[in-house]
Amino acid sequence: MGNLNEWDDFAELDFEREERCGFPEVVFGLGKTPEQVASIMKALAVKHDRVLCTRATEEQADAVFVELPYARFVSSCGMLFVDRRDDGAHTVGNSVSEMLANPGGAGNLIVCCAGTSDLKVAHEAALTAHLMGSKVSLFTDVGVAGVHRVLAHEDELRGARVIVVVAGMEGALPSLVAGLVDVPVIAVPTSVGYGASFGGLAALLGMLNSCAGGVSVVNIDNGFGAAVVAHRINVPPARFRE
Amino acid sequence: MGNLNEWDDFAELDFEREERCGFPEVVFGLGKTPEQVASIMKALAVKHDRVLCTRATEEQADAVFVELPYARFVSSCGMLFVDRRDDGAHTVGNSVSEMLANPGGAGNLIVCCAGTSDLKVAHEAALTAHLMGSKVSLFTDVGVAGVHRVLAHEDELRGARVIVVVAGMEGALPSLVAGLVDVPVIAVPTSVGYGASFGGLAALLGMLNSCAGGVSVVNIDNGFGAAVVAHRINVPPARFRE
Amino acid sequence: MGNLNEWDDFAELDFEREERCGFPEVVFGLGKTPEQVASIMKALAVKHDRVLCTRATEEQADAVFVELPYARFVSSCGMLFVDRRDDGAHTVGNSVSEMLANPGGAGNLIVCCAGTSDLKVAHEAALTAHLMGSKVSLFTDVGVAGVHRVLAHEDELRGARVIVVVAGMEGALPSLVAGLVDVPVIAVPTSVGYGASFGGLAALLGMLNSCAGGVSVVNIDNGFGAAVVAHRINVPPARFRE
Amino acid sequence: MGNLNEWDDFAELDFEREERCGFPEVVFGLGKTPEQVASIMKALAVKHDRVLCTRATEEQADAVFVELPYARFVSSCGMLFVDRRDDGAHTVGNSVSEMLANPGGAGNLIVCCAGTSDLKVAHEAALTAHLMGSKVSLFTDVGVAGVHRVLAHEDELRGARVIVVVAGMEGALPSLVAGLVDVPVIAVPTSVGYGASFGGLAALLGMLNSCAGGVSVVNIDNGFGAAVVAHRINVPPARFRE
Amino acid sequence: MGNLNEWDDFAELDFEREERCGFPEVVFGLGKTPEQVASIMKALAVKHDRVLCTRATEEQADAVFVELPYARFVSSCGMLFVDRRDDGAHTVGNSVSEMLANPGGAGNLIVCCAGTSDLKVAHEAALTAHLMGSKVSLFTDVGVAGVHRVLAHEDELRGARVIVVVAGMEGALPSLVAGLVDVPVIAVPTSVGYGASFGGLAALLGMLNSCAGGVSVVNIDNGFGAAVVAHRINVPPARFRE
Amino acid sequence: MGNLNEWDDFAELDFEREERCGFPEVVFGLGKTPEQVASIMKALAVKHDRVLCTRATEEQADAVFVELPYARFVSSCGMLFVDRRDDGAHTVGNSVSEMLANPGGAGNLIVCCAGTSDLKVAHEAALTAHLMGSKVSLFTDVGVAGVHRVLAHEDELRGARVIVVVAGMEGALPSLVAGLVDVPVIAVPTSVGYGASFGGLAALLGMLNSCAGGVSVVNIDNGFGAAVVAHRINVPPARFRE
Amino acid sequence: MGNLNEWDDFAELDFEREERCGFPEVVFGLGKTPEQVASIMKALAVKHDRVLCTRATEEQADAVFVELPYARFVSSCGMLFVDRRDDGAHTVGNSVSEMLANPGGAGNLIVCCAGTSDLKVAHEAALTAHLMGSKVSLFTDVGVAGVHRVLAHEDELRGARVIVVVAGMEGALPSLVAGLVDVPVIAVPTSVGYGASFGGLAALLGMLNSCAGGVSVVNIDNGFGAAVVAHRINVPPARFRE
Amino acid sequence: MGNLNEWDDFAELDFEREERCGFPEVVFGLGKTPEQVASIMKALAVKHDRVLCTRATEEQADAVFVELPYARFVSSCGMLFVDRRDDGAHTVGNSVSEMLANPGGAGNLIVCCAGTSDLKVAHEAALTAHLMGSKVSLFTDVGVAGVHRVLAHEDELRGARVIVVVAGMEGALPSLVAGLVDVPVIAVPTSVGYGASFGGLAALLGMLNSCAGGVSVVNIDNGFGAAVVAHRINVPPARFRE
Repeated sequence: MGNLNEWDDFAELDFEREERCGFPEVVFGLGKTPEQVASIMKALAVKHDRVLCTRATEEQADAVFVELPYARFVSSCGMLFVDRRDDGAHTVGNSVSEMLANPGGAGNLIVCCAGTSDLKVAHEAALTAHLMGSKVSLFTDVGVAGVHRVLAHEDELRGARVIVVVAGMEGALPSLVAGLVDVPVIAVPTSVGYGASFGGLAALLGMLNSCAGGVSVVNIDNGFGAAVVAHRINVPPARFRE
Repeated sequence: MGNLNEWDDFAELDFEREERCGFPEVVFGLGKTPEQVASIMKALAVKHDRVLCTRATEEQADAVFVELPYARFVSSCGMLFVDRRDDGAHTVGNSVSEMLANPGGAGNLIVCCAGTSDLKVAHEAALTAHLMGSKVSLFTDVGVAGVHRVLAHEDELRGARVIVVVAGMEGALPSLVAGLVDVPVIAVPTSVGYGASFGGLAALLGMLNSCAGGVSVVNIDNGFGAAVVAHRINVPPARFRE
Repeated sequence: MGNLNEWDDFAELDFEREERCGFPEVVFGLGKTPEQVASIMKALAVKHDRVLCTRATEEQADAVFVELPYARFVSSCGMLFVDRRDDGAHTVGNSVSEMLANPGGAGNLIVCCAGTSDLKVAHEAALTAHLMGSKVSLFTDVGVAGVHRVLAHEDELRGARVIVVVAGMEGALPSLVAGLVDVPVIAVPTSVGYGASFGGLAALLGMLNSCAGGVSVVNIDNGFGAAVVAHRINVPPARFRE
Repeated sequence: MGNLNEWDDFAELDFEREERCGFPEVVFGLGKTPEQVASIMKALAVKHDRVLCTRATEEQADAVFVELPYARFVSSCGMLFVDRRDDGAHTVGNSVSEMLANPGGAGNLIVCCAGTSDLKVAHEAALTAHLMGSKVSLFTDVGVAGVHRVLAHEDELRGARVIVVVAGMEGALPSLVAGLVDVPVIAVPTSVGYGASFGGLAALLGMLNSCAGGVSVVNIDNGFGAAVVAHRINVPPARFRE
Repeated sequence: MGNLNEWDDFAELDFEREERCGFPEVVFGLGKTPEQVASIMKALAVKHDRVLCTRATEEQADAVFVELPYARFVSSCGMLFVDRRDDGAHTVGNSVSEMLANPGGAGNLIVCCAGTSDLKVAHEAALTAHLMGSKVSLFTDVGVAGVHRVLAHEDELRGARVIVVVAGMEGALPSLVAGLVDVPVIAVPTSVGYGASFGGLAALLGMLNSCAGGVSVVNIDNGFGAAVVAHRINVPPARFRE
Repeated sequence: MGNLNEWDDFAELDFEREERCGFPEVVFGLGKTPEQVASIMKALAVKHDRVLCTRATEEQADAVFVELPYARFVSSCGMLFVDRRDDGAHTVGNSVSEMLANPGGAGNLIVCCAGTSDLKVAHEAALTAHLMGSKVSLFTDVGVAGVHRVLAHEDELRGARVIVVVAGMEGALPSLVAGLVDVPVIAVPTSVGYGASFGGLAALLGMLNSCAGGVSVVNIDNGFGAAVVAHRINVPPARFRE
Repeated sequence: MGNLNEWDDFAELDFEREERCGFPEVVFGLGKTPEQVASIMKALAVKHDRVLCTRATEEQADAVFVELPYARFVSSCGMLFVDRRDDGAHTVGNSVSEMLANPGGAGNLIVCCAGTSDLKVAHEAALTAHLMGSKVSLFTDVGVAGVHRVLAHEDELRGARVIVVVAGMEGALPSLVAGLVDVPVIAVPTSVGYGASFGGLAALLGMLNSCAGGVSVVNIDNGFGAAVVAHRINVPPARFRE
Repeated sequence: MGNLNEWDDFAELDFEREERCGFPEVVFGLGKTPEQVASIMKALAVKHDRVLCTRATEEQADAVFVELPYARFVSSCGMLFVDRRDDGAHTVGNSVSEMLANPGGAGNLIVCCAGTSDLKVAHEAALTAHLMGSKVSLFTDVGVAGVHRVLAHEDELRGARVIVVVAGMEGALPSLVAGLVDVPVIAVPTSVGYGASFGGLAALLGMLNSCAGGVSVVNIDNGFGAAVVAHRINVPPARFRE
């Protein structure tokens, strides 16, 4: 008799989100059961050509594949999504590199990070912006301690409409990049580091105190959030584009 | 010879609590063994018509069911309780919604939160207040980023005697709600969030600094504590009610 | 013999900044002597049609007026500047309202804050963006605890290309505004508050944890920094505008 | 030519606040000029029988006396107010004690603190609640280190509908008081202390972690905020009082 | 070939510690292998009549029992020890209560805590002081929210030469106890609590800011450290005892 | 009419404190007016042979001298006191050194610090303990970076019944001293330092984490508090002394 | 179809690092798969006579042994390396002691720590410096609470060109050591401790506030980083050595 | 009678410091009276050819000039000193630039910072190292946001034996510099910045988390401390120099 579980009453879906904000409601996977994720994504897929779940797990992906066999899961950054756009920008390919190489995106959005450890967050940012409709380039070998590798990309960086810079440890890369360009830089601190990095706090404070103009900051590890801001800069809403 | 375990000397029970404070002593499940919880609840059930254990686990529930087969466990919020009140307000139903729909409670206490992630704490608050004797309504689809969904409840919120607002992340919902009503708002920060939420600290500080009048705050994730305060506002002790 | 003061060796000026980043080097007034500020601004005014010093004092302004009698000082936000643009967007008028009313700016940038206490930072943001060439509107009577005053501006907010939201205390306004629009929101926490606001930390954390999409954050009280980011969004560099 | 000051554009007044929230808009004195305070209070006094400015200074008071000679200033807690209520509860007397002794207030609200150092905040709380219409008693000689002095008030404490407990240092008094009663306790941490009190943080954390049921907390030194919550508990809005 | 493990070079033992400080070197179990603990304790047992390991695990105890079958392990507080004193104070009995009831200790040292959750630390403190030679009484049912239970022990508390007070959450008990006595109180904050207790920080700060005279504080959960201080107060070194 | 000041209602005095706790109530000077201090000390002097005010200012001292011409003020540590004991231990001399040289005190209490900067707190501790009746020695030239100067006092340190160690910066001295003795060490962190000392936090944390046994800690700069604890160790209440 | 893993695109290797900085690129093992570590180390081993991976696991070591059977793994400090130097300084032996006893290193670098718990970090520092070419001595039985054990090494400490001091808890050892020598001391705080050590923060702050001259600090547990600094001091680049 | 001031008993001087540590005892000016500073410096000048007081004020300088007319005061960094070395390295000139241009120093030590605001700390570091005997170059126009200005000094930086990098705000400059060289970098965070710089904490954490090898850190604003470490690297004690 006794045992009840109320987690079945999950939130009502907001199907008007796409019209209001330009992209359908996004599912935050953390803490949801595979069944919850599958049933939410299935419901959203009825109405939308793209459906995205961030911070997803392999188990959640497996549950979704049963309902939506054409869904895709990128385990390196926990992104689980459906992309059935018919405008030439829909996702193809078997790796993040191939997906981003897709020519259909708009504008020119660059995501850069120093290397292996920040890749998870950089992938989340790049794939999110790609799904929203941006043309995205990803540079993963730039770091403040190897300044010549950053400068090797100077011309490409100057060509971007907006740059997302992902960095852990001391979080200095956004200042370096912002000193080279005249467009907005969205800084994403990561929790990469140990000891006095305090879970990304050092990088966060560093970015907030950037001595370079044009830097704004999102939450620690929030590649998704950075992508939303950057995409809105890169591809203005339609009313600004005639 | 060597091995001893002293955890058997657990605290003496305070059977006068109900008379002094209006509700029997409540068991805090965290860190107790299933045997301890079962034996405490059994002892309390001899004297009281309601017995409550918060932060309970499935294992503790199973141990209690052996002793008190009419006990109930709501796993979504870890609440394990006995309710044998005979005043029409006792708990019936198989879900939190059904339990709260029970017409016997007094006053008008509203618990609201933004959605799925804060539900655990909101359920703890709502069920606790219900067990104490309040009539409780639960709104789970209100959030500061979707202000129109809050405003859709404006009339109901204005009808409440007290409102418990549960929120994680930036903890802004209590300010928004308190700006709409003239009754006390009890704010409960939750540990929902990541990165710079620092386990609920961001929400806690936000609530303490609320620009709206009439807000007071309890500890992070402390739905139980909020319910105690709110119930004491909603249903004054008998001496204030003639 | 003994007493020397080395503060006379101040930094070399970077006259190429305007070409590289779109705006001449900006002087940070804090901690500089009136003589230093006057001599730097005089040197910059030889090469540029706009010269800006932030966090300036009355004393610094007086020293500058001697050298550059056409300079202007807005004491409410410590901005000291020269504006000799000949493109119709140059600054006229005797109040911030009159200055912003100037029709020559480009795009549509909104700065909003809750009221009196955040005005200093909001003025810094609005005037900076104006001097950089943006058309700026300033709303000063919006606050999360009076949500209907925010909603009264809903249509204007939806018309903006970018919105700077200045807020102290719990810092909830950016979430509320971002929930209404589909363009980037730049959030500026202010040090307004007391007790557990910890000099703006509560507002900063609140904004970083915003539950609404499209929000990025700058340093506490950094109206200037927010304006640089927002202007770069509002008026893309020329190469993106043909 | 140059020098402008924009602080004259202060916030529009919200004359409907009394109807919506039960008390006219309250002026926060900190950082406003004497002229601003005087002109705001004068405007409010045209429409309301009570006008309150908190955190006021002697200079602000002097400016207000010119416009509103019947205004009163209690320098011990920086409260500057007009009270022209005609319901028998209006403020009379020349000390806080005499003001609170006024028999016209409703309900039974107790404010207590340990002594001299917390008096400023306790006075702010007590006078605010008095002006809102509560009957207020103030106990200033209770402290956790002298438990017998607390117990001497046990009966009076048990008679209250709500208790505001003001405490600095370790902030333990609310737990002690809440253990004695069955009504809500609103805890106000104060910045009294030194060293590891960290400006009231120790007291704030202590109160949030209170082991006693029924305690909720407001911001450090926020006697005003505690009074708003407590008054709303002590004297429910009219619709709850027939 | 490759794989080496250097953890075998563990610290040299300090056999003169007993003479210099009054008690043999104590082993800190955390992070040591069962083999390391067994071999250190075996070596110490050759020279000393008491050997103590704190923060020990069941596995460490099992390894020690092989070498020292007369060793004892109290799992409730992770204490593993040998006691072969022949002065009448050596440890007997099968529970902490029985061990402390032993009549041979000197002086009068009281350990008190609020209940179940702080028991682990209180047991560590009480048993350590007992092993060092103090007569120890343990009160486990005193808490600031139930002040009458504290006062019920007032006479016994006044009879002690020193009191160790263990408390989590808001850490208020030491202030309450210190207000009743004229002897030193050693306060031990525990990590018991959740949310804004921040792992014991709230209790620690509360104790450091105690408004009562005569309180000093040790590290969070450091029952052992409190016992060392308290025993040195309770039983002065021999040179002070003739 | 308007202006009132309620600070005249100061706390009732606790004349039984001496009997209960062994020393009369002590006045905390910070934030009190000279008149308040003078009138409190005058009242206490009627009943007690010693009256002490800590954190006193020159102005408070001057007001007290008018009422109690035999009072004494030691400006180096802000101590203002009356000492009319007739037991040979009363204070004589014109410097702290001379006062402590007084042969009448009991026991053997040592206060030590590293030098000039911590002297203020060390003087507060030493004089307080002296007034309470302890024989106090003060060593001011010991510091962890000059370990040989500490070792030069090794024999004297070993002779003490209790040692108060005052230290700022990294707060390492208590560990060093505690490693040399078998009696309790009371550690007092000071706010001396800059940058990452964070107002004494570094020293406080260092002391709480001392690797040496027998150390307990009081609040930052709390020389008075340390003296109360140390005196109670050094001179047990009379009932322990027959 | 769905499941992709992008972690295979790991960072490009920087083969010029040895020439530019004096040592080949070092692999940071944390978070990399065994396959990634093996493939990176294999690639580096083609070009360099030494290859080092820090924070390595047993699994990573096993994967590397397959590719590089002459690699070595020291599990006590997670160091996995290849050393094929032919200059007499290459690593031999089966324990850290034996490895360091190797006579081929240059200069005189001492690593010291208090004992068992800090050994992991001290080993990382010592082995790293050894692999870089320094002659390294390791003292593991020195601690501030046993000052005579430190002084026993006074002559050896004075002979070093640089000293790395590893310490947890209060982090006082660097001050003590720096007070004895005239060469640089590199302090490494460790996360050893509990309660208010806050994961090494207490030791870090203590070291930054050292009262002794000549101390600089690296991140918590960063034995590797300390070794890089110390080796660069101990063995200057060749251009400084003719 | 009453008023005494004990500050006259200041610390004994340590005349053997120069022999033990290579430089005479340095006076820390903060909080000392002008008389104290003058009398200490006079006493030191009898025995040593260099005497240094850091954090000195104009008033202290004036008092010293009376006793030691050949003393010098550099107000930009609060350094007050006597330099009577006869080895060609003694200080001449009227500005910091001229003083450092002095050819007599040994080795090659570079101090660099971004500009005006960090100059105070950079001057303290440079002058201290100069007085200790190092040849010092000072670069004040390098900043991470203008990376090309850093690279313009690349060759000079590579020629240094050690580099002190002073930086506020995000503290990224040390990483950038350390990525270019193979010698130790001593990083000095400054309190320059505002808002979330938290008095230099952001820069401090950034530096501790530097991703570049070879960086160690000193306390916030501690230019003096950095110079001591750097000089000991730059000019080894004589026993290492034959």
